[in-house]
Amino acid sequence: MRLTSSQIAQEVQAQRVQGNGEVIITDFASLDSATKQDLSFFADPKYENHLYETKAGAVLLPVNFTPRRALPSHTTWIYVNRPDHAFYSLVRRYKLPPLPSWGREPYAFIHPSAQIPEETYIGAFTYIGEGVKLAKRVWVYPFAYLGAGVEIGEDTIIYPHAVIMPNTRIGRECIIHPGAVIGADGFGFYQGENRIYERIPQVGRVIIEDDVEVGANTCVDRATLGVTRLARGVKLDNLIQVGHNVQIGEYTAIAAQTGIAGSTTVGAYCRIGGQVGIADHLYVADRSSITAQSGISRSITAPGKSWRGAPVQEVRQQLLMEAIMRKLPELYPRLREIEKYLSQS
Amino acid sequence: MRLTSSQIAQEVQAQRVQGNGEVIITDFASLDSATKQDLSFFADPKYENHLYETKAGAVLLPVNFTPRRALPSHTTWIYVNRPDHAFYSLVRRYKLPPLPSWGREPYAFIHPSAQIPEETYIGAFTYIGEGVKLAKRVWVYPFAYLGAGVEIGEDTIIYPHAVIMPNTRIGRECIIHPGAVIGADGFGFYQGENRIYERIPQVGRVIIEDDVEVGANTCVDRATLGVTRLARGVKLDNLIQVGHNVQIGEYTAIAAQTGIAGSTTVGAYCRIGGQVGIADHLYVADRSSITAQSGISRSITAPGKSWRGAPVQEVRQQLLMEAIMRKLPELYPRLREIEKYLSQS
Amino acid sequence: MRLTSSQIAQEVQAQRVQGNGEVIITDFASLDSATKQDLSFFADPKYENHLYETKAGAVLLPVNFTPRRALPSHTTWIYVNRPDHAFYSLVRRYKLPPLPSWGREPYAFIHPSAQIPEETYIGAFTYIGEGVKLAKRVWVYPFAYLGAGVEIGEDTIIYPHAVIMPNTRIGRECIIHPGAVIGADGFGFYQGENRIYERIPQVGRVIIEDDVEVGANTCVDRATLGVTRLARGVKLDNLIQVGHNVQIGEYTAIAAQTGIAGSTTVGAYCRIGGQVGIADHLYVADRSSITAQSGISRSITAPGKSWRGAPVQEVRQQLLMEAIMRKLPELYPRLREIEKYLSQS
Repeated sequence: MRLTSSQIAQEVQAQRVQGNGEVIITDFASLDSATKQDLSFFADPKYENHLYETKAGAVLLPVNFTPRRALPSHTTWIYVNRPDHAFYSLVRRYKLPPLPSWGREPYAFIHPSAQIPEETYIGAFTYIGEGVKLAKRVWVYPFAYLGAGVEIGEDTIIYPHAVIMPNTRIGRECIIHPGAVIGADGFGFYQGENRIYERIPQVGRVIIEDDVEVGANTCVDRATLGVTRLARGVKLDNLIQVGHNVQIGEYTAIAAQTGIAGSTTVGAYCRIGGQVGIADHLYVADRSSITAQSGISRSITAPGKSWRGAPVQEVRQQLLMEAIMRKLPELYPRLREIEKYLSQS
Repeated sequence: MRLTSSQIAQEVQAQRVQGNGEVIITDFASLDSATKQDLSFFADPKYENHLYETKAGAVLLPVNFTPRRALPSHTTWIYVNRPDHAFYSLVRRYKLPPLPSWGREPYAFIHPSAQIPEETYIGAFTYIGEGVKLAKRVWVYPFAYLGAGVEIGEDTIIYPHAVIMPNTRIGRECIIHPGAVIGADGFGFYQGENRIYERIPQVGRVIIEDDVEVGANTCVDRATLGVTRLARGVKLDNLIQVGHNVQIGEYTAIAAQTGIAGSTTVGAYCRIGGQVGIADHLYVADRSSITAQSGISRSITAPGKSWRGAPVQEVRQQLLMEAIMRKLPELYPRLREIEKYLSQS
Repeated sequence: MRLTSSQIAQEVQAQRVQGNGEVIITDFASLDSATKQDLSFFADPKYENHLYETKAGAVLLPVNFTPRRALPSHTTWIYVNRPDHAFYSLVRRYKLPPLPSWGREPYAFIHPSAQIPEETYIGAFTYIGEGVKLAKRVWVYPFAYLGAGVEIGEDTIIYPHAVIMPNTRIGRECIIHPGAVIGADGFGFYQGENRIYERIPQVGRVIIEDDVEVGANTCVDRATLGVTRLARGVKLDNLIQVGHNVQIGEYTAIAAQTGIAGSTTVGAYCRIGGQVGIADHLYVADRSSITAQSGISRSITAPGKSWRGAPVQEVRQQLLMEAIMRKLPELYPRLREIEKYLSQS
């Protein structure tokens, strides 16, 4: 990239520009790490202080923003409606490497019954099993395994080393990150006659709807019977465990290393922190917000609340409890003091 | 599958049938999701309510079961000794897809010294190193890596992308799920002369006995010296960490995302929940039951008890403590009230 | 290996030998599991009791060590300056299997623009993308994926199934363990016009300095902009999550299943236990020591302290609080007793 600040202002349909229009911009950076050839942006009021100290060559900022004090004159200030949108669309256009071109690399194993349109990328060392159906504009990176009967929708990316076990269905515009395992057997046993643990046959499947992301090395188990489902817009970070028959509702986002045990239903539009544990056969209501490292062992039926702790309580209650817990080391001696006083009186 | 309820009754050697024997059954489902062409079963008394509301075409239930109220007449009721056994054996026969046939797919890398019987499946893109020995009826799926000297017993399945590092021994009837890593180096360092962390050479191995499962993306590290051992019947869920020199006793089952640090011994017949942490060099007695998210930092020497919390206490004690913790927000003001009263008196 | 105890004494430049110099040693073992043909060593005073009960044929021990009681006469005692150094260097010489020889196995996909010196090992089923640069003495094991523009320094090992995404730079003498994913996209979204979650383009990279280890199935995400950095000597165990733009300082060691959220900086020489969670945009000071399963949701600014709990407190304070928490079940009735007494008086 090599653009002047004026050219950038034009590209993002700026409302107003303050400063030198001839500054040369060659890269992107955050406000606090930018140098004079970088473009940066300001959107979150929390970081307003960074504005007055930035060394960026140009900064995108909201058209309705009024700075508390004078903005540095060595920077060109470009006012737009949505600076984050404008910034990320420039990053996408000028910095994001293109995806591989359509075509097939050598050493792909493709079952003759698989349906693969021309407009797809099939990397080296990919395994595409019997009856697999790919839509147009699917990228299958090297070392991806697509088991028999897998179906994948348009504009979906399967990154290297992803494992998609048989009969999994993945929608459009999804991203399956490296090393993710979709559709492995659920963890279920019953007491057999000769064996303590007899494996319950896992004959269900995983259905992933449109616009879903599954993070690196995350596991989504197939259903015992029926379906494990990630609804439209679900975003899973890395190293997450999703047990058999779990249902995750639309646009719920979950941070890394969280685990959801079998047959639990998580509602829509939830935000779940990292390292959270949710036990089996529970229900978590829509729009729940769960702090990192929480533990959920009972269903949450009231929607739209914030939860924290293990076992969880509503955030306010849990924070109060935690504050008093930290006072216990002084509280205990006070109790003894009272007892001593009373025993003497 | 397409069977009448009578044919099913015959297959499972039913003791008694109540209802229409000519119902056509084509699939399997749980009581609450079944439709009129589905077979379901009832075994856990906890779900008795589902019986009276099921839409299943036929249901297997225990011969000695007496319903609390009338069973719906639109369902055929088939009484057997063990409904779960009967149900799962039908699922296995009619619904579970067969494993791949014996033979070799193209693009396998097989060291000439490897011993591979005819009755094995060797998938595409498998790597089978020097001196590997496979028994009969072993399935090695695509992208499996079997390092030098690996030995695998009869009827074992190695799923796609499993990594079996050199000299690992795996018994009969085991299942290694996708992305599992068996025998990577343990995490051990000593202070060197030039370096702060000098790697301790990890020259032990992993031995996995018969009838063991290792979940997707689970890691079992090789021993520093000697052996990391999963005894007969151990069941590990996904994303578990088993450190170097850990010993896990017979028929112990462990849920997802639990971690066991180096040199710890876990006894037999334990049941360990998800996201549990067990520190290094400890002992956990046989038949211990550990609640999810617990933390174990001291050995558990008494067998057969239930533990909860971090650090763990016996469940009853821990639940009592948790209950009182939740009362702290009201307890604290009461203490202040007493102090105030006494200071005035 | 087949050496007499005298030959071993000579190899390790022993200061003094006590006992039979003709004992035949063929293997290595820890003090408590050694048999009469094994060499063992003693370094940690905690295990002194093992000395008096060992069955080892020979034991290395510190030259300045004075046993509390008589050492068994069936063992040859070899006194050296650093018994651990001596022991591990013998293990390395006589027991550690050699790494593969230089050369290329069949079925490697190597982009014509990649720079690969002769002195490298390129395993079967490796994918080496456009513009990759390997230094001398690099081992790339089967199923490793090296994306476009990856650079790897001398004497580094990339184990099977490691995924190194484009533009990652890895230094010298590093070890990337099986299944590790370096440089996958960070987890970042902004609110779009049509979609709730619009993906923030992740165009930064990962830089791993010299002498770093990344454990099996551990994930290190690329930066959104800029760099995610593991500084010299960092040691990461298995199944760890390192978010986008995280910085980890020199010689910090982190145990399995810990997660560090985006944009957090962890200082140098820290020791972090397993299953710890560290929230985003925080700072953890140099030489911090964090107990396993802790949760860090505020920055730690004072260096060199020990922390425990969720949320963390200094270890002493947290242990005191935990001790009193365990007393709560008796404390609560005592409070009620006081209230009752006062209400009657």
